Amino acid sequence: MADVQVEPSTPAVVLLSGGLDSSTVLAIAQVQGYQVHAISFRYGQRHQVELACANRIAKRANVSRHITVDIDLSQFGGSALTSGLAVPKHASADEIGNDIPITYVPARNTVFLSLALAYAESLGARDIFLGVNALDYSGYPDCRPEYIRAFEIMANLGTKAGVSGQPMRLHTPLIELTKAQIIAWGLKLGVDYSQTSSCYDPLADGQACGRCDACLLRLRGFAQNQLHDPVAYQPPS
Amino acid sequence: MADVQVEPSTPAVVLLSGGLDSSTVLAIAQVQGYQVHAISFRYGQRHQVELACANRIAKRANVSRHITVDIDLSQFGGSALTSGLAVPKHASADEIGNDIPITYVPARNTVFLSLALAYAESLGARDIFLGVNALDYSGYPDCRPEYIRAFEIMANLGTKAGVSGQPMRLHTPLIELTKAQIIAWGLKLGVDYSQTSSCYDPLADGQACGRCDACLLRLRGFAQNQLHDPVAYQPPS
Repeated sequence: MADVQVEPSTPAVVLLSGGLDSSTVLAIAQVQGYQVHAISFRYGQRHQVELACANRIAKRANVSRHITVDIDLSQFGGSALTSGLAVPKHASADEIGNDIPITYVPARNTVFLSLALAYAESLGARDIFLGVNALDYSGYPDCRPEYIRAFEIMANLGTKAGVSGQPMRLHTPLIELTKAQIIAWGLKLGVDYSQTSSCYDPLADGQACGRCDACLLRLRGFAQNQLHDPVAYQPPS
Repeated sequence: MADVQVEPSTPAVVLLSGGLDSSTVLAIAQVQGYQVHAISFRYGQRHQVELACANRIAKRANVSRHITVDIDLSQFGGSALTSGLAVPKHASADEIGNDIPITYVPARNTVFLSLALAYAESLGARDIFLGVNALDYSGYPDCRPEYIRAFEIMANLGTKAGVSGQPMRLHTPLIELTKAQIIAWGLKLGVDYSQTSSCYDPLADGQACGRCDACLLRLRGFAQNQLHDPVAYQPPS
């Protein structure tokens, strides 16, 4: 997949959360030759540290444009990521269950992809990159391949671009990879993972908790590559 | 369809623009017994008069809750409705073409439906009502039945509610009706159309232009019912 090469100046929209997956996807889109327009979301998340990471990553990658869209999902309620509910913690990644956890944000990827679609169509881009991953993940339904395919079908029925014979394409290069494989690929592409933030519940200074689903999956991914995760973690209490 | 009756206290989300169609749909949802949670959008539209209408209509209908979500689609560009581009005017509804006009806002209904979906899932509602109409309309791709069906499939693959066996349902009771039929139905339900605003390019005081697609379709709908549209129109210049 990395050896795909597009025509020069082909624009693409990349959803950039500031985490490990989306930072890797940004590097993949660039190595394929896309001119990247990155989009991030200030959605009421408790972990706004990731937006500072997204800004640094976009700048370092020298993207064509990076916009941060304000959309307050916390006004709807219903998630530990946008409310005062406690984020679940575990001792190891093996403890992460198969049920959808309370960190699930209702329809979040649908909202984010819809806005990415609006942005892409407005700037004449047909390609949207998203770092979802259905293997080492928290069990969210909107990270699965069948959901992504359904969104793409809907997008092509609901846009001028789609019905005009210029289909929009969703690219999810990480969807079938383990976290360890994602990290290995990103390191080959020069991604600086010290600049990323994955934690659902970081301290204000950005230190990761080390015990939420996102931290544990990330830590295991580095360990399986015989590497240390370069981000700062809170010392065990 | 109007004789459907749901269990008491069944919540539903109604997308309420403040126009003729969505005001009719709100009345339909209420007569079917739904407890209505209305959602409107401040999306950078030039015709913010419609938001004042939405507020009045929601209040008069005594809905359970009415929220207005801020989401600035004008930052993406690409539409006469969110920019300084001139809104096309015609002499009569018969002049409205079949091409998608420049009033099309990229992916607008997808963005709005995604947020309605997030709201519905957060409050435990399975039903979403939307006043799209594929007959007397401006040719937007995101008003067609095939698009609506595709959104519903996507929504049920991408939400916790959907994958937990509580499918979300999109209701589009107006989709196959003419504007005249919609008005006739709404009047039977007691909708006060003097409180609605459909114009794409109204004056600041709310007076409708009388010559954009939305005005012409609406005026023809009233005329076909041998009625005068009760809203104020600018005098011909």
